[in-house]
Amino acid sequence: MNRKTPKTIPSRMANQRAHYDDETIYSILDEALFCTVSYAEDNLPFSIPQSFVRLDNYIYLHGSVGSHLMRTLSDGRMACVSVMLADELVVAKTAFHHSVNYRSVVVFAKGELIEDENEKFKAFKALTEKMVPNSWDYLKPMTLKEMAKTTAIRFSLDEASAKCRQGPPSHEESEKDLPIWTGLIPIKPQRQAPVPDEPGKEVELPKHLRF
Amino acid sequence: MNRKTPKTIPSRMANQRAHYDDETIYSILDEALFCTVSYAEDNLPFSIPQSFVRLDNYIYLHGSVGSHLMRTLSDGRMACVSVMLADELVVAKTAFHHSVNYRSVVVFAKGELIEDENEKFKAFKALTEKMVPNSWDYLKPMTLKEMAKTTAIRFSLDEASAKCRQGPPSHEESEKDLPIWTGLIPIKPQRQAPVPDEPGKEVELPKHLRF
Repeated sequence: MNRKTPKTIPSRMANQRAHYDDETIYSILDEALFCTVSYAEDNLPFSIPQSFVRLDNYIYLHGSVGSHLMRTLSDGRMACVSVMLADELVVAKTAFHHSVNYRSVVVFAKGELIEDENEKFKAFKALTEKMVPNSWDYLKPMTLKEMAKTTAIRFSLDEASAKCRQGPPSHEESEKDLPIWTGLIPIKPQRQAPVPDEPGKEVELPKHLRF
Repeated sequence: MNRKTPKTIPSRMANQRAHYDDETIYSILDEALFCTVSYAEDNLPFSIPQSFVRLDNYIYLHGSVGSHLMRTLSDGRMACVSVMLADELVVAKTAFHHSVNYRSVVVFAKGELIEDENEKFKAFKALTEKMVPNSWDYLKPMTLKEMAKTTAIRFSLDEASAKCRQGPPSHEESEKDLPIWTGLIPIKPQRQAPVPDEPGKEVELPKHLRF
């Protein structure tokens, strides 16, 4: 698939940092729990953070059937969906060379409302399993009523690109020997132990949530 | 300050989740290291993740003087800057009631290019200190040449709103006694121990980076 278009080629560091292959794009989208969805209305930008899941060459968003965002995103206009994983702060000898090691994806696509109930179900299941792995079969099964209250929209990844920075800080040749500490500060989010909201009820913590 | 405008009133849960006070908006912006900046061009949306810092009632972005984004954002058009802190996954008895505890801010503003060198310097210092607290005085001092290579743009927080969800999962009354575990999974990013990139050089880890 050729994802390179005028919109997906970054204006800076394209050769060093841009990627268009499935593996890079999919792995970032599968690790990130949240994206930012943007659209324009009368040439004014609007953007909103959302959870999402990737299946094949699409990402899926969901929302209430009453949601303004869902209606807007499914009316045929172009959207821009961006995702960023911030891995490390890059600490240099100068503030100027400070940076961030990140992996990001930007997607340009029109939202397609999912009419097929099987595809919608598959997307909800995948989103739930992404948020809480192996939890789907443990939960009370999704009902048709709940399905009917929820909209799913997909966006093709045909016009998408990844941009990543990895590695140590840069410095000027003249700064090389300055006795100033340089390195990386990891800032990846890490799941912590689940906190029950009904501790008195003593429902056993299921295996898939054990930390 | 009255930040309520048609653009800053969310279409859903406005009464329960929207906030317009300085304290809520500033505290989210001060905790979040990254934002997503969106703009429109010919009614098409573009968005890009960026680091930023808040000072008084403004947020500041920076970038190379050659950056397409910086030029675009300073040409007088409206931008939308959004920030999301994902605190906890909210695990309910049904997939339908799963949610996320988050704190988000959305800002609508025109970018203003910072011409004043003192304000620019203050913004670079604040950004560095936000990323790595107490590091500014330890680093090689910023030079005029570095200053000249970098653009700073500010966005007013006059038209901004916060939206937050906190608390336990919801459930239907009929689901109350189902023996299914419910609670929160904390997913806040946490800084980890710094990793030197020149371990052989044995520059001592400065006090402000000790973990």
